[in-house]
Amino acid sequence: MNVIGDVPALRTLARAARGRGDTIGFVPTMGALHEGHLSLVRRARQDCGFVVVSIFVNPLQFAPGEDFSRYPRQPEEDEKALAATGADLLYRPDEKSFYPPDFSTAVEVGGVSEGGEGAVRPGHFRGVATVVTKLFLEVAPDAAYFGRKDLQQVAVVGRLIQDLDFPIRLVVCDTIRDPDGLALSSRNAYLSAFERKLAVSLPRALFGARARAAGGERDPATLERQTRIELERAGLAVDYVEVVDCESMRRPQRIGPGVALAAAIRLGKTRLIDNVLLLDE
Amino acid sequence: MNVIGDVPALRTLARAARGRGDTIGFVPTMGALHEGHLSLVRRARQDCGFVVVSIFVNPLQFAPGEDFSRYPRQPEEDEKALAATGADLLYRPDEKSFYPPDFSTAVEVGGVSEGGEGAVRPGHFRGVATVVTKLFLEVAPDAAYFGRKDLQQVAVVGRLIQDLDFPIRLVVCDTIRDPDGLALSSRNAYLSAFERKLAVSLPRALFGARARAAGGERDPATLERQTRIELERAGLAVDYVEVVDCESMRRPQRIGPGVALAAAIRLGKTRLIDNVLLLDE
Repeated sequence: MNVIGDVPALRTLARAARGRGDTIGFVPTMGALHEGHLSLVRRARQDCGFVVVSIFVNPLQFAPGEDFSRYPRQPEEDEKALAATGADLLYRPDEKSFYPPDFSTAVEVGGVSEGGEGAVRPGHFRGVATVVTKLFLEVAPDAAYFGRKDLQQVAVVGRLIQDLDFPIRLVVCDTIRDPDGLALSSRNAYLSAFERKLAVSLPRALFGARARAAGGERDPATLERQTRIELERAGLAVDYVEVVDCESMRRPQRIGPGVALAAAIRLGKTRLIDNVLLLDE
Repeated sequence: MNVIGDVPALRTLARAARGRGDTIGFVPTMGALHEGHLSLVRRARQDCGFVVVSIFVNPLQFAPGEDFSRYPRQPEEDEKALAATGADLLYRPDEKSFYPPDFSTAVEVGGVSEGGEGAVRPGHFRGVATVVTKLFLEVAPDAAYFGRKDLQQVAVVGRLIQDLDFPIRLVVCDTIRDPDGLALSSRNAYLSAFERKLAVSLPRALFGARARAAGGERDPATLERQTRIELERAGLAVDYVEVVDCESMRRPQRIGPGVALAAAIRLGKTRLIDNVLLLDE
């Protein structure tokens, strides 16, 4: 596995791969890799001849006061994990060359980015859309791999690809969970042992709603209300609980295919998000 | 010359050209082509194996109340002129497929876009940056050709290419002028015979300032003031007269290399812009 930080070297290696007839799969990450990320790399490995992973903790997608400075960073472990998983190239730009002092361009995706995380984290999706656009232009992949855990991010990137005509296939992979159901997240590392036990109430409440949908419940407001009550009873501070159409991120009239229940909660200083599709596809 | 409106066909032809080893030159236009545009096509023809020209009157870069609906459209003449000038492919998307109803992405370049045209035409450069980003992704050129007449647009596109890491070389070509000095512009067609005669005062004032700079004047404020007085004496309504650094679009302390004098005036219902470099490079 090549590990590089500069764009000319990245382009040279990617073009060489393309010249050999390989397709390029790309997994953008912020590092602190867990099995969720590695499942994306494995999927890219299956699909593509050349697999690029980026690690870049993108300051633009953190609002002031969020956890940018304390976001977990573990470059050596990440590098080992990626090499073991079969990535071909690890692209690890440094912040100053990625965003030089006179950097002044932003990409904004309206609509899908406005509710949910967008409402709670102003500027977050603008930062996501900007970094993803720049990384896409640097790597020029054929396919890009994102996890469904970040449901709204997937919708934003999907919209971005469609609106700007990126020649990139978006591949969305299932959320990977701990045995008790908690979705893997780099931020789980922030949880104390006590908080970690409480955190399981988040997936439990979401899967409870999914069971009620399977049992015939079709009203978004009812599922939202019941889930919120469960989360609050478990001692979690609820940022939002929302039924959304996965593509438009709008609230549907009724539960149907492609509709998810998404929630964000706070546990001490840690903020966690999760979602489930309410019906089998 | 191929004339097409859809992206898959565009990509097929561009990729075929690339497969033959051709570099791709791209000239984005809004049509109503004049010698200024054609000079860009000729330059692209010299540099590149495959020359793509787009014609798209981009609604996003017109503010409400501007001249979007009456902007000159002459598809047959344009097509003939491009074929005669040696373009390989004319890409002419229709508005509905370029901006479908759920289109919701915008690209914004701060800094360079804020003064000058940006201050007078809110949203203009956001529209420019968005359409240019999308066209760049569709055409995937090696080089893109822009006229220096739209000085601030050149700065915005330059910034965009640099910030987002587009693998595209920006080629800036000199302004083409009528024999009396008026810069060619599709909007000159709006001028009555009387206004057309008055319009020459714009380049005359700018070249007057250039002569004073050649004679040793180095103070931006003095040149701006004198030029404004000349323009107003000639009966032109001045939107702005500004000394700017061509790259940063900031006002320099003193006249030096890479510094231009840019002006926008109104003549009846018509708005014209022009600029000159104040010193020889």
